[in-house]
Amino acid sequence: MASNCVLLFQCEDKKGIVARISDFIYKHSGNIVSLDQHSTDPDGGYFFMRVEFIIGSPGCDEESLNKDLSAVGREFKASYKLYDKNVSLRMGIFVSKPDHCLLDLLYLWRSSELKVKIPFVLSNHQDHKELVEQYGIPFYFVRSVKGDSKEHEILSYAKDNSDFLVLARYMQVLSGDFLKNYARDIINIHHGFLPSFKGPNPYQQALERGVKVIGATAHFVTEDLDDGPIIEQAVEYVSHKDNISSLLRKGKNLEKRALSNAVLNYIDYRVIRHNNTTIVF
Amino acid sequence: MASNCVLLFQCEDKKGIVARISDFIYKHSGNIVSLDQHSTDPDGGYFFMRVEFIIGSPGCDEESLNKDLSAVGREFKASYKLYDKNVSLRMGIFVSKPDHCLLDLLYLWRSSELKVKIPFVLSNHQDHKELVEQYGIPFYFVRSVKGDSKEHEILSYAKDNSDFLVLARYMQVLSGDFLKNYARDIINIHHGFLPSFKGPNPYQQALERGVKVIGATAHFVTEDLDDGPIIEQAVEYVSHKDNISSLLRKGKNLEKRALSNAVLNYIDYRVIRHNNTTIVF
Amino acid sequence: MASNCVLLFQCEDKKGIVARISDFIYKHSGNIVSLDQHSTDPDGGYFFMRVEFIIGSPGCDEESLNKDLSAVGREFKASYKLYDKNVSLRMGIFVSKPDHCLLDLLYLWRSSELKVKIPFVLSNHQDHKELVEQYGIPFYFVRSVKGDSKEHEILSYAKDNSDFLVLARYMQVLSGDFLKNYARDIINIHHGFLPSFKGPNPYQQALERGVKVIGATAHFVTEDLDDGPIIEQAVEYVSHKDNISSLLRKGKNLEKRALSNAVLNYIDYRVIRHNNTTIVF
Amino acid sequence: MASNCVLLFQCEDKKGIVARISDFIYKHSGNIVSLDQHSTDPDGGYFFMRVEFIIGSPGCDEESLNKDLSAVGREFKASYKLYDKNVSLRMGIFVSKPDHCLLDLLYLWRSSELKVKIPFVLSNHQDHKELVEQYGIPFYFVRSVKGDSKEHEILSYAKDNSDFLVLARYMQVLSGDFLKNYARDIINIHHGFLPSFKGPNPYQQALERGVKVIGATAHFVTEDLDDGPIIEQAVEYVSHKDNISSLLRKGKNLEKRALSNAVLNYIDYRVIRHNNTTIVF
Repeated sequence: MASNCVLLFQCEDKKGIVARISDFIYKHSGNIVSLDQHSTDPDGGYFFMRVEFIIGSPGCDEESLNKDLSAVGREFKASYKLYDKNVSLRMGIFVSKPDHCLLDLLYLWRSSELKVKIPFVLSNHQDHKELVEQYGIPFYFVRSVKGDSKEHEILSYAKDNSDFLVLARYMQVLSGDFLKNYARDIINIHHGFLPSFKGPNPYQQALERGVKVIGATAHFVTEDLDDGPIIEQAVEYVSHKDNISSLLRKGKNLEKRALSNAVLNYIDYRVIRHNNTTIVF
Repeated sequence: MASNCVLLFQCEDKKGIVARISDFIYKHSGNIVSLDQHSTDPDGGYFFMRVEFIIGSPGCDEESLNKDLSAVGREFKASYKLYDKNVSLRMGIFVSKPDHCLLDLLYLWRSSELKVKIPFVLSNHQDHKELVEQYGIPFYFVRSVKGDSKEHEILSYAKDNSDFLVLARYMQVLSGDFLKNYARDIINIHHGFLPSFKGPNPYQQALERGVKVIGATAHFVTEDLDDGPIIEQAVEYVSHKDNISSLLRKGKNLEKRALSNAVLNYIDYRVIRHNNTTIVF
Repeated sequence: MASNCVLLFQCEDKKGIVARISDFIYKHSGNIVSLDQHSTDPDGGYFFMRVEFIIGSPGCDEESLNKDLSAVGREFKASYKLYDKNVSLRMGIFVSKPDHCLLDLLYLWRSSELKVKIPFVLSNHQDHKELVEQYGIPFYFVRSVKGDSKEHEILSYAKDNSDFLVLARYMQVLSGDFLKNYARDIINIHHGFLPSFKGPNPYQQALERGVKVIGATAHFVTEDLDDGPIIEQAVEYVSHKDNISSLLRKGKNLEKRALSNAVLNYIDYRVIRHNNTTIVF
Repeated sequence: MASNCVLLFQCEDKKGIVARISDFIYKHSGNIVSLDQHSTDPDGGYFFMRVEFIIGSPGCDEESLNKDLSAVGREFKASYKLYDKNVSLRMGIFVSKPDHCLLDLLYLWRSSELKVKIPFVLSNHQDHKELVEQYGIPFYFVRSVKGDSKEHEILSYAKDNSDFLVLARYMQVLSGDFLKNYARDIINIHHGFLPSFKGPNPYQQALERGVKVIGATAHFVTEDLDDGPIIEQAVEYVSHKDNISSLLRKGKNLEKRALSNAVLNYIDYRVIRHNNTTIVF
């Protein structure tokens, strides 16, 4: 039985990285399925690489594989991580009233297009309880994550049960403490074309500014609201005929598209953060 | 010989406007070619209308036509204007070093797709002199429009010779005085996806923010830099592979597209300003 | 209490149509909400118009309204129809195994964005029975519509219970007899960019041809398979990296988008068939 | 002084190809700038690779480099080619009356965005003679390439003076003999969204079919008219409001975009033909 491994590798760019890594894979009888690399500047820039390869049993956890890899890492002073594609990530979902992104994720999940585990859905509204539980997923109603004891409880639950979080139109702001302590990736969908129209009611803002294109933005959450690294954006043309309700309707499609694409790329280990930007291989 | 007339008409929305205007056209044996209307709210909102119609000689200037029209205008306390499509508008062009928008406009003009007169091209660089004069268009080199006597001279020349101005990548800021005294429409192309990335070097800003979509924006110039009513926007997807030079190249296409579409709609009397937005019929 | 009426009107183009119709509306104290018109050629072409207007009680069914309208119709030898927007159309759904379009329609319906009645869902698979019945909609399993007695039965049921049909990825071909006898509109979503890639497996065809853009097409069903008037198309860029499964995934989004937009426009009486094309106001 | 080399390499997929090639580059002190690879199937499929790397003097022509490379090629029974990016390709242009693609290519060429030599422009019309010669490029007027002696003459001129040809809206069909004997790549821009609307007047065909999206297609010329491998497609939404002249205008922009992108990718050695498709790295 073979394993699908993904290696993400980054370091200062210099000669021989690709040769060294592909040789390492070859020595372990790995077969490269895909390889992407990006350098901010071949002369003194920073280097990023994603290699997906297949190796025979016992797979990505093989001791000798990891030992050799750590030698390569040291050699290039790299930061790197090896993932086993057969192990599904655990994706916790936070959601408020709007349900279109939640439904889209659940649909993709049930039809096996989104290969994750969903350990829980947390909401500050009761509305989606029945729906979520029909899918056999635990649902938690929490009016507000903020508040000392509650925040701590949720944080520790989330840390124990999830590898990353998706805010699928979650309207509350997570505290800096929460972000710092959760210390894993949190993906948010903003219903505006960032960096325009931060904050609440972006479609109303778009209407007032009279833009001819609207958008939605999936990004990593950071302490600076709506300012984290952008993963995916989706856009659509609008006109003076559009009113707030048609913008909201068009926006829903954009939000679903941007968020599901971002999550699909993320769980396939295609998204790398670099400063305040992302590389999406 | 028949004339193509365009009537732009706007007033508070109430019953009977379309009936009254279409009856007025019918009485003058006009044949409606196209009719567009928009109301911000059928109940107490503001109403906008563009009607294009064909009437027999002597055409749009006919005295009885204008007399009847002014009665309709009074009746609805409307502001309106009647245009003769056979009369070409005079479009003055201001341009700096980048020449792609200038070339695109000149190409469209020479191939008769852009039905305007081009009385002059003014630039703060000498570079385009030969090109412009090959087209038989007067070229003026003016290092800076600002400066009391020069500004006055250019203003009075522009007022005498143009119906509107196009800033086809003109990198200097026109003074509030100039705008106020020119008192006609000025269309600018901004090489960014407004309202994101105002000011200089929008592609550099876009690169640093890590957006996944870039854009260009054609808009009316107002005293607030890059804040005037948007006429047209064009967008394109980008990725981490793009660097500043590929963004500039893609951006050129976006700028040409947004600006030429905006100008083509403008000279066909399809663009109506309303507060800080536009209606583009 | 006021009614929202929509008038669709078409006839040979000549002078005075708009005047005559808007006057008719004005005389009945109607307030025009929106008016769209299109002429294939102002000189001897064919004329199409959609007017949406609000009138006071008793509304669109008022006897005098219809009497006057029929006079206008006679005058221009027009074909026309007056609709009451407060009366929801009954939309029957036919579906096979793929469920994404069905789910999208049901979602829009439940969230009141799709203002129709859904009298039934008919499928040649049992899979969606539970889902459909959860929404409180009758579900019929019919292995094949073809077959004399069964076809007759379904036809008569559909005629009694629906104003139009949507084939939301229904993989069986309806017979010419069925179409002729149903004699109302049937909207299909084809998972290819028509007129390319008719028939089965369009994404496989697209892959083999090596296109760089894929699409989905919502169109009216006619006896010529995949050849009916196109209502809406949605497209997306693809590359050599796409395989059949990524095309299918991207295609699902395109299909949902094209079909739901087509249906939303259709039930708002914005879609007019003309020869083998459509006007979508 | 360093050289920028591009290696295109293709063979049956098996383990160790990337390792072997990147090691070969490393051994020659090359610095990989970018590396793209694609496999039709990691298990028994076909493998394609493009590596761009910088090596020190004397560069891509170095004898030992080519000797080692030929060993790698033999090892994998590969077909491959090494290009020196500092050597500009010679791009011959064939054009008929429509000049927008020609102008766009000349503009990109003069502004150094299109790094090729243009040895000649050949046309079956005299119209563009002056323009082309203003750019200092030889212009040949040839009413028809067909005709025994003339065809032979042009063919031998083209073979001596160009590395590839671009048909920038050239309306004559090149004979199978010409294609076979020229035996290099010929890129054509088709003003339709292939495989729909082959042959002449694609926009008229699109209008009659009532499509809601039009497109342009850049592809390699093969003996089967409009059936060669597609390199790039560009699309735009249209509506019932569009007539043949607006389709032509929109189409011009699509054609320019598709053709110039295709050519820019081609001369950067990013386009690989495979059966009747292309890989565009």
